[in-house]
Amino acid sequence: MCFPRKMLSMLPMLLMVLKGNVNAVALFEATERNCSLSPPYLPSTAVNSSRQLQELREHMLASDVAAYVVPSTDAHMSEYIGARDARMAFMTGFTGSAGTAVVTPGKAALWTDSRYWVQAERQMDCNWELQKDVSISSIAEWLTSEVPNGGRIGFDPFLFSLKTQEDYAMSLESSNRSLKSMPGNLVDRVWKDRPAISPDSLIRLPDRIIQRSWQMKVEQIRNQMKENPYQPTALLLSALDETAWLFNMRGDDIPYNPFFYSYTLLTMDEIWLFLHTERLTEELRAHLNASCGGPLCVQLKSYDAILDHLKAHVSSRSGVKVWIGTEYTNYALYEVIKPQDKLLSSSYSPVLITKAVKDETEQRILRDAHVRDAVAVMQLLMWLEKSAPTGKETELSASAYVNHCRSKQKDSRGPSFETISASGPNAALAHYSPTVESNRKLTADEMYLVDSGGQYLDGTTDITRTVHWGTPTALQKEAYTRVLMGNIEISRTIFPSGTRGVNMEMLGRKALWEVGLNYGHGTGHGIGNYFGVHEWPVGFQSYNIPFREGMFTSIEPGYYKDDDFGIRIEDIAVVLPAHTKYGHNYLTFDTVSLVPYDRKLIDVSLLSPVQLQWLNKYYESIRRLMSAELERQGLHEEKKWMLRHTEPFVESGSSSRGRSSSPALLALAVAALCNVALETCTLY
Amino acid sequence: MCFPRKMLSMLPMLLMVLKGNVNAVALFEATERNCSLSPPYLPSTAVNSSRQLQELREHMLASDVAAYVVPSTDAHMSEYIGARDARMAFMTGFTGSAGTAVVTPGKAALWTDSRYWVQAERQMDCNWELQKDVSISSIAEWLTSEVPNGGRIGFDPFLFSLKTQEDYAMSLESSNRSLKSMPGNLVDRVWKDRPAISPDSLIRLPDRIIQRSWQMKVEQIRNQMKENPYQPTALLLSALDETAWLFNMRGDDIPYNPFFYSYTLLTMDEIWLFLHTERLTEELRAHLNASCGGPLCVQLKSYDAILDHLKAHVSSRSGVKVWIGTEYTNYALYEVIKPQDKLLSSSYSPVLITKAVKDETEQRILRDAHVRDAVAVMQLLMWLEKSAPTGKETELSASAYVNHCRSKQKDSRGPSFETISASGPNAALAHYSPTVESNRKLTADEMYLVDSGGQYLDGTTDITRTVHWGTPTALQKEAYTRVLMGNIEISRTIFPSGTRGVNMEMLGRKALWEVGLNYGHGTGHGIGNYFGVHEWPVGFQSYNIPFREGMFTSIEPGYYKDDDFGIRIEDIAVVLPAHTKYGHNYLTFDTVSLVPYDRKLIDVSLLSPVQLQWLNKYYESIRRLMSAELERQGLHEEKKWMLRHTEPFVESGSSSRGRSSSPALLALAVAALCNVALETCTLY
Repeated sequence: MCFPRKMLSMLPMLLMVLKGNVNAVALFEATERNCSLSPPYLPSTAVNSSRQLQELREHMLASDVAAYVVPSTDAHMSEYIGARDARMAFMTGFTGSAGTAVVTPGKAALWTDSRYWVQAERQMDCNWELQKDVSISSIAEWLTSEVPNGGRIGFDPFLFSLKTQEDYAMSLESSNRSLKSMPGNLVDRVWKDRPAISPDSLIRLPDRIIQRSWQMKVEQIRNQMKENPYQPTALLLSALDETAWLFNMRGDDIPYNPFFYSYTLLTMDEIWLFLHTERLTEELRAHLNASCGGPLCVQLKSYDAILDHLKAHVSSRSGVKVWIGTEYTNYALYEVIKPQDKLLSSSYSPVLITKAVKDETEQRILRDAHVRDAVAVMQLLMWLEKSAPTGKETELSASAYVNHCRSKQKDSRGPSFETISASGPNAALAHYSPTVESNRKLTADEMYLVDSGGQYLDGTTDITRTVHWGTPTALQKEAYTRVLMGNIEISRTIFPSGTRGVNMEMLGRKALWEVGLNYGHGTGHGIGNYFGVHEWPVGFQSYNIPFREGMFTSIEPGYYKDDDFGIRIEDIAVVLPAHTKYGHNYLTFDTVSLVPYDRKLIDVSLLSPVQLQWLNKYYESIRRLMSAELERQGLHEEKKWMLRHTEPFVESGSSSRGRSSSPALLALAVAALCNVALETCTLY
Repeated sequence: MCFPRKMLSMLPMLLMVLKGNVNAVALFEATERNCSLSPPYLPSTAVNSSRQLQELREHMLASDVAAYVVPSTDAHMSEYIGARDARMAFMTGFTGSAGTAVVTPGKAALWTDSRYWVQAERQMDCNWELQKDVSISSIAEWLTSEVPNGGRIGFDPFLFSLKTQEDYAMSLESSNRSLKSMPGNLVDRVWKDRPAISPDSLIRLPDRIIQRSWQMKVEQIRNQMKENPYQPTALLLSALDETAWLFNMRGDDIPYNPFFYSYTLLTMDEIWLFLHTERLTEELRAHLNASCGGPLCVQLKSYDAILDHLKAHVSSRSGVKVWIGTEYTNYALYEVIKPQDKLLSSSYSPVLITKAVKDETEQRILRDAHVRDAVAVMQLLMWLEKSAPTGKETELSASAYVNHCRSKQKDSRGPSFETISASGPNAALAHYSPTVESNRKLTADEMYLVDSGGQYLDGTTDITRTVHWGTPTALQKEAYTRVLMGNIEISRTIFPSGTRGVNMEMLGRKALWEVGLNYGHGTGHGIGNYFGVHEWPVGFQSYNIPFREGMFTSIEPGYYKDDDFGIRIEDIAVVLPAHTKYGHNYLTFDTVSLVPYDRKLIDVSLLSPVQLQWLNKYYESIRRLMSAELERQGLHEEKKWMLRHTEPFVESGSSSRGRSSSPALLALAVAALCNVALETCTLY
């Protein structure tokens, strides 16, 4: 046990915690700030925000605004943001993914949700108050009390969605405080060492994984514009994956997401692409037909030129109508499309809707990526099966291991999100990823959940498996089996084309509900070909678009017992036609993730005959597809492991029979134990 | 074959139809108008609308409006309307339940949906054009082309919902045509013999069926007003069932709905009730504490005084905030609540939300009503089983029979809607009710669907059964069984309190989807204690509120094969707590309709063991509850019929075993046949 740093400075805190219910760790150093002490107690993780606050306030004064709002998003409403967009973190010290900071001349406040309250108390100094009701009406209420009557509240319209602006405007409506849209961001003026744009060249996807050239996609989108009854003359693309998809290009501006900062403005006879043009190689300029002037030539513009260009485009011509997707267009671009009859809006642009349905090649290569990805996940599970019970491995080492295994696979481009590697009670926390502080040893006494994914040139993966290396409790086994039943019930369901995911997602919960269990998150999200791990128009949430053939979605029910364990089973599935006795145009799912579930956790007696049949059929697919791949990669031990774990289950009331019916299986298990290779994935 | 009337006048029509594909019936008389002939052809069912149109146009001229909109609703956004509110029918001749008429100086047009196109062509003369796109944007487009630039479009704000007004305003936004709200209805000035208000006295519900006095309900609602964070000072009740519920009163102003024209304005210390005060007996005035002045005294106001009273209430006091439910408040009342900060709106008022959850007494008496109602429906089915195969009965005689059976039951107050009695292809039509023209003979060769319900002092019922008296086809049997499986799957599901119906309703479709079948209507609606048959806040549609303990809903999946047959199985169920292994606050349904399904149509081999178990348990309930009731009513033959039809099904792969396994059952059937009593329900 080592002695803490900064022992003297935290003496008041030590005394305080001694009075309460504290555990051994808390005694050594309070990890959260205490602003009610004099002087305030600040942990070593807190960031001094005085300079940036002072400078921001000077700029606010010069701009005559009594408050300034600093959101945590970027100009493209991205799910993940690049380092140069982390303005909220720069101002506050708080690095969580969601929040809003507001500064007045005398006060500063941060709003974030319950996931991040502890983190905010660790990272912020006492310049900042923490607000816990994250509704915009709560922020507006605070603003009304802090900003004098008649005062103006400044915001960067590039960082507000239409909805955000509308919500603020509505909440402040009768308050006599007005919103002031200020396109030049004030934080950026203060942020001296703001990270620069990546100098890396952008890439184009190789022809071998492309079915539609960007010219074909442009034609496809233009046809949709022509067919639209509201007769748009232009289409503005704001989400980063829209431009990346349209031009078959990728970049590295956003962690885990192969995107590059960009906008596209498309008309029937022109294409303007706004990006950091210095990052285009000659080959890419040729790819984009950047030197000609016809309807299939791309006119390159500077990223920062979008606002002026759009303004000029809208005002210079009569009869202009610009189509935008409101979910991803920022308020700065929206507010220059005036008057209203120059605007056509839908929740999602036609590019996002079109992109959601994968063409034949995209389906094939996304399946291919899942075959290779399954190799890496099997290597992790096989290794854990041997290593975890030794007590030498941790959440972090397991996370590193699976990342390493993925990196060895063809066309790997790193993880698609930060791996959730969670043992025991950690797995019951939403959004948990291990840190040095939280890192937990893996043991045969705890369940372990690993939710991870890879980026490959041909596809993005996302899979969760939950395992137990010792003896699960009855509840763990029942909950796991019912989560699996949920996964199976969604996967095998047959539904009319155009059914919404939200109307089917209860199938993922039904088996849990029957015994009074449930889970508190969504049941799945879209995914695609080397994009962000969440392709939002697709999935099981209320705002998702209806399912059509060729869409890919995750299916991920779970169950979480606070302070004890967490279960999630996540697979990716593609929507395919179902052949029914009487009907046409019916669909079903086909699972493309190819990793077996933990047999030890399945109580076969709970499964219905059709569920068991589905499971055995799925295992047949794994055996067929993965045998070939594992052999191709020369991974014989992995193949044996896979075959052992995908033995067919026997239909019976007895759950134990399924586990140990085959003497051959036992023999294989013994053989496997005698053949340990500690890091088989590195052999490839 | 009889010769048609009006043979001469329809000669041009005869010649026309001879050219096309016609059937024998069409040859005799064209039932639809033909305005392209000269002179136009009008069937005998067409109404001459010239006088009313001319007079309306005079009033339009005097009011300086270039168009006038005539909706088909009343001032309370009622589902059914009273005769005096049938303004659209008075103007057009068209009596369908949904439509909008618009009149300009030179033209007149009616918008109605596909259910009613044939009916409109039969009932309207050639003053009217029929428009088939019923969206408000289509009406607005027509208005823009017919009304000159700068012209005003008049409407009665009492007949527009907020949403309707908003949709018109939005659609006309950039057209330079303006909407003019005109509280004095122009049609009423033209309508000389407009039906008067019913002179009947209103009634109060007897104490034996009341748990909460109106005073208790008022307190309950006031508490909700106090608890509301937006601090409303007043609540405006506009839907007719809101006032009826609050004061435990009923009337007879609307067909099938025991409502009376009324509004309520409730504050913390006053209650104003707006109605036709001459209809209140002394007893009712006493019931309402109408002669005192405290917070639990009702101040009676004339029905027509609501607008002025509300205007004065809003403007005379500072700090007034009026809570309205936007779904049922008309635009006339909405537009006097100004400025905006005097308004608090939610989709439904707290009365509708509170009313949706039945108290213990309401639950008990609604179950009681269903026991008596089941007697009437069993009498119908038993009678049909004997009479229908003789070929002497029709849809209309069956409809009359069930109405008659219901009328014999205690506390009967007539049918709760027009009975849908439909044989063969008629059952495949949405919203079919038999008419003299469409009336179809019942035979053993066709399936028969009967959807009917009763009003009783203690409850409203609604039940659908589909039967076959001969040999069903394989498809009929499979479809029926899968519809039943849908009904069972919803009924037996266990779900967390607060789950929305829309998220569960696919359980009603799942078994059909599996073989490519589906249905095109909703899966259920709320129902209650002597109110309208549809209590809209509850049900399985997207706009319904989440399910809570004590709500009642119909569950009614179906399947319809065009020009062939229709299947629907509808039961009413109450939401009750479910006892689960691990959880709390879970709910499930308990079916309160108590009429067996047609055994002949059930393929037991398709049912899962749990479904079969549910069915047998349900049949046990029917046997237990209905045996007692049928005995009490001395209906021995009906009891035998009921027992025969609720024999337990045998769990087996063979569907035939379930039908005829019991020799006792056969004996009963023979006994039943020998014991025919043609109208057993009249014996009671």
